[in-house]
Amino acid sequence: MSTFFPMNNGEAVYSYSRNSQIQREVLDGAKEMMKESIIKNLDIKNILSSSNKFHITDLGCSIGPNTFTSMQHVVQVVKDKYHDNNLEFQVFFNDHFTNDFNTLFRSLPVDRSYNASGVPGSFHGRLFPSRSIHFAHCSCAIHWLSKIPKELLDKNSPAWNKGLIHYAGASNVEIVNAYVVQFEKDMEMFFNARAEEIVQGGMMVLVSPFSGWDSLNFFGSSLMDLVNEGMLDESLVDSFNVPIYFPSPDDITKVVEKNGCFSIEKIELTYPQSKLVDEADAKTFIINLKATLEGLFINHFGSRIAEEAFTRTVLKNEEISAWMKTNYKTCQLFIALKRK
Amino acid sequence: MSTFFPMNNGEAVYSYSRNSQIQREVLDGAKEMMKESIIKNLDIKNILSSSNKFHITDLGCSIGPNTFTSMQHVVQVVKDKYHDNNLEFQVFFNDHFTNDFNTLFRSLPVDRSYNASGVPGSFHGRLFPSRSIHFAHCSCAIHWLSKIPKELLDKNSPAWNKGLIHYAGASNVEIVNAYVVQFEKDMEMFFNARAEEIVQGGMMVLVSPFSGWDSLNFFGSSLMDLVNEGMLDESLVDSFNVPIYFPSPDDITKVVEKNGCFSIEKIELTYPQSKLVDEADAKTFIINLKATLEGLFINHFGSRIAEEAFTRTVLKNEEISAWMKTNYKTCQLFIALKRK
Repeated sequence: MSTFFPMNNGEAVYSYSRNSQIQREVLDGAKEMMKESIIKNLDIKNILSSSNKFHITDLGCSIGPNTFTSMQHVVQVVKDKYHDNNLEFQVFFNDHFTNDFNTLFRSLPVDRSYNASGVPGSFHGRLFPSRSIHFAHCSCAIHWLSKIPKELLDKNSPAWNKGLIHYAGASNVEIVNAYVVQFEKDMEMFFNARAEEIVQGGMMVLVSPFSGWDSLNFFGSSLMDLVNEGMLDESLVDSFNVPIYFPSPDDITKVVEKNGCFSIEKIELTYPQSKLVDEADAKTFIINLKATLEGLFINHFGSRIAEEAFTRTVLKNEEISAWMKTNYKTCQLFIALKRK
Repeated sequence: MSTFFPMNNGEAVYSYSRNSQIQREVLDGAKEMMKESIIKNLDIKNILSSSNKFHITDLGCSIGPNTFTSMQHVVQVVKDKYHDNNLEFQVFFNDHFTNDFNTLFRSLPVDRSYNASGVPGSFHGRLFPSRSIHFAHCSCAIHWLSKIPKELLDKNSPAWNKGLIHYAGASNVEIVNAYVVQFEKDMEMFFNARAEEIVQGGMMVLVSPFSGWDSLNFFGSSLMDLVNEGMLDESLVDSFNVPIYFPSPDDITKVVEKNGCFSIEKIELTYPQSKLVDEADAKTFIINLKATLEGLFINHFGSRIAEEAFTRTVLKNEEISAWMKTNYKTCQLFIALKRK
């Protein structure tokens, strides 16, 4: 099963462009750390040699507006560090072929201080010429697996994930292990490609959410409600797993060490302030999840069941709000890497 | 009036992707000349110095498939000339923000031998960092004006283009002069931008249709039929002009000399074989024009009148076919330039 389901496109009510607050909060929390990492680790005189062109990419950029905020931030930090008016910035916005690049391009800030281009394709493979990227950024994207490990769908496997849609909440450790193995395979491809593309001394910053997706269980239980009411066959729930794995610092350290081409300059779990969590704003939270996951749900269950599961989950508003107050804390993983 | 009307998008019956035979014939006619020009004029050892990355752009690429054919051709000719396995190619597909980049990206050939990226924006302005492009290609695109000169719409101007939709067929020389002046302004911006972006010794190939668009008069007369039947107000025809000027070799020589940064390595009018013309295939010819111009017509007249004008023109099938046999010859202008 391929998992190339883009964020909801366009600019409508449930679009990603209007419903990406969680991702925005992750991004805001990372801004200061990114600035410090660039100031401490980036040496453009060394990596650009005689050229004046600084190439940045945002991997898994989706359709905005978050990507514009982070790209402008990188450009500004580099500008402020070097005060070199000759520096020119080219930003490569990357996401899957199925991403809505038309919306992305039409939303580009008019006052941007970089040349913009879009690069379609999976970041698990090669996207750029060798040694052509000086700074790669990837926020809220590496946790998407390239596919669901097939053991999760196999009744005869100890990793069969019956009645759940994710490893969160699964009692069987084989299930999370299957996710981990797939994550490691994906990251091996990711780091191999980036090792070719990023110049010596170039940087990569990864930001990934680390918790909070237990909330996927609320969608899962809505689906099981539909099963219990006879609206949905249970085998359809059993055969569905959200292809998201939230890596720990150890997971990242392991894949970086295996690759061997990058040094870890900083790796840190942080707990940023979240307006959504402080206000226990379950409805916004659910709508945000919908904008992110709807394509995936519709592809597997069809649009009627997907919509019904969403509606049921909104009705769990108060339950989710209570859960947010007591159990949920935003947590993100920040990693700054340097190409050796 | 801005003229950012893309070719018909998607892959439907009247889409540009299915109806770009005229543009394809222009392209095929230019292939051999492009090959010769690259072999004769391109010196990558000189322009790449220590780098191995060759940057190509197709300016005004639309949504394919023609752009893929020409980009692969450029890559292949350069590869065949140098037999250097270390060479890496990056292609920047450029067109307006309103172009359907989603369709372009999803149609990218799987077996392409270059990294692909899309660059949205008008080629009358800057698109790339300075000295970053080694080869620029622009086929069937420079004849699009950035806007309609306002004299054409001014009742009190000698250039008022009453009852016609183009300078083709206009008896008043002031009308074509207004088009020429706008073309020269646009090309001044175009060459200023390219002079910054193309490296010293880099090349640019322009291919432009030179004749055959007299056929626009058939659309114009269909609109006037609607006026005579009371379906359309004549002032709407008077205020509509197709923003296309077909430059002559002298026009191009003049703008290149004014810019001063490029040498003309070859400039030639050619008369390629055309299957459409040989077969006097008026219907395919009209559908091709529709795919190219429909956005423009709908924007000015609304979709009902645009469709009606198109239907009326298809009914002139035999008349247009007879005209193609006696008067119409495909003709294209090929220009190879080198950045001094």
